[in-house]
Amino acid sequence: MLDSRDRGLAYGDGLFETMRVAADGTIPLQALHLQRLGRGARALAIPLPNQAQLQQALNQATSSLAGPGLIKLILTRGTGGRGYLPPASATPSLLWQTADLPAWSDNDRCYGIEMGVCSQPLFPDPFAGQKHLNRLAQVQSRAEVARQGWQEGLMLSARRQPLEATAMNLFARFKTGWWTPDLALANAGVAGVMREWLLTQLRSRGESVHCDLRPLSQLRDAETVFLTNSVVGVLPVRKLAQWRWGVPDTVLALQAEVDSLFDA
Amino acid sequence: MLDSRDRGLAYGDGLFETMRVAADGTIPLQALHLQRLGRGARALAIPLPNQAQLQQALNQATSSLAGPGLIKLILTRGTGGRGYLPPASATPSLLWQTADLPAWSDNDRCYGIEMGVCSQPLFPDPFAGQKHLNRLAQVQSRAEVARQGWQEGLMLSARRQPLEATAMNLFARFKTGWWTPDLALANAGVAGVMREWLLTQLRSRGESVHCDLRPLSQLRDAETVFLTNSVVGVLPVRKLAQWRWGVPDTVLALQAEVDSLFDA
Repeated sequence: MLDSRDRGLAYGDGLFETMRVAADGTIPLQALHLQRLGRGARALAIPLPNQAQLQQALNQATSSLAGPGLIKLILTRGTGGRGYLPPASATPSLLWQTADLPAWSDNDRCYGIEMGVCSQPLFPDPFAGQKHLNRLAQVQSRAEVARQGWQEGLMLSARRQPLEATAMNLFARFKTGWWTPDLALANAGVAGVMREWLLTQLRSRGESVHCDLRPLSQLRDAETVFLTNSVVGVLPVRKLAQWRWGVPDTVLALQAEVDSLFDA
Repeated sequence: MLDSRDRGLAYGDGLFETMRVAADGTIPLQALHLQRLGRGARALAIPLPNQAQLQQALNQATSSLAGPGLIKLILTRGTGGRGYLPPASATPSLLWQTADLPAWSDNDRCYGIEMGVCSQPLFPDPFAGQKHLNRLAQVQSRAEVARQGWQEGLMLSARRQPLEATAMNLFARFKTGWWTPDLALANAGVAGVMREWLLTQLRSRGESVHCDLRPLSQLRDAETVFLTNSVVGVLPVRKLAQWRWGVPDTVLALQAEVDSLFDA
């Protein structure tokens, strides 16, 4: 339960992280999740609980799961302040929740999913990149995905540049190398932890990785397109609007590499 | 207390109304507030509680106040759904809270307040005009107002057109008539209940009222500038950045007219 005067409810004045717990009860990407939470807390000027408090919440959550699953950590500015004005000295609220892993079929993971292009643009965001609690744009587009019978939806900028899916980041492979949209340049979207992990992996191997903004039409020339997040890992896309792509071994290898993080 | 899995917390997936209660315990603008709540609920596809349920919440709140004050009504989509996806059949949460009237000095109400121009633009919004719970932009700008020692802050579009203050709507009077920014055209901001009430009043008297988007520099030519919301009513602006305005009797008359709504 939460105080109904919490600013997380009143204004979405807070952050969250959804972390995948491995079979052995560990959280393989915990460090990246907590780093992003720390960046978000600095951006929103919310005091970050210390490492011991964060670790205690995660320990309680993993114990309650007793196996693989998901932990959602929510950090809000707590109560107080006058209207929109934050309190001079906030006492943040830290909550945890658990959930089961979502089921993605082997078929989807192997041959890819079908996406559509969402009708509403993803507008710039004063706290772009951060995983804050202002998510009506994603709720709206995710409802469209369901109405249209798609499996995910591509969100475009107002200039019709691909930015991300409703709950996953976008990658593609072109002849010139790997690519993902530059969310900082777009000033929009959520910079996912799995996106960050993959970018680091690819770059550390000396692979060519481009991070910029491209028109939607350029996706036609992609060799392959896939989505990522820290729950599902790597999910190929076989169809978007009128375009179709295959799933090369390089993408299945990336997928397997991510999966192995959680199989310990 | 609120279920911490409520989507109002998780995603800001809900709406609110802040209503001023008059000295006699009535809510003079109740009808306009409930109409806007209804429009917001339709836009977000959240089931609206029936009139009896809404009235019961307001009765409880006014009883608990036992005099003038503020009632905040919060309507969320409730719990459920898978991630961003709303549940097929939502059971909304309806909450009420009360607060004291904020104190604005007679001096400010008579001679006007000092505003600054917020550094961050107010970006377009998928649910522009509605009073939803995604308010990080306002929280951010209100914190800037406090840091800078202003009394309110003017939020501009990315094209530097005045849109609104952090918690109030903007009006001005030019030689050609009254003016307020066209928030529907800007696809941004909150269309306040007091703004709506004033527009109706002015138009019903046959006054000339313009609703469009203008560059910031045009405010230099305004005869007077003022802010409105349903809590404070009409609040003149005496200074914005390098510009100063007087407070003509026409504006004080509007202010008195609004005040009289709550003095019954």
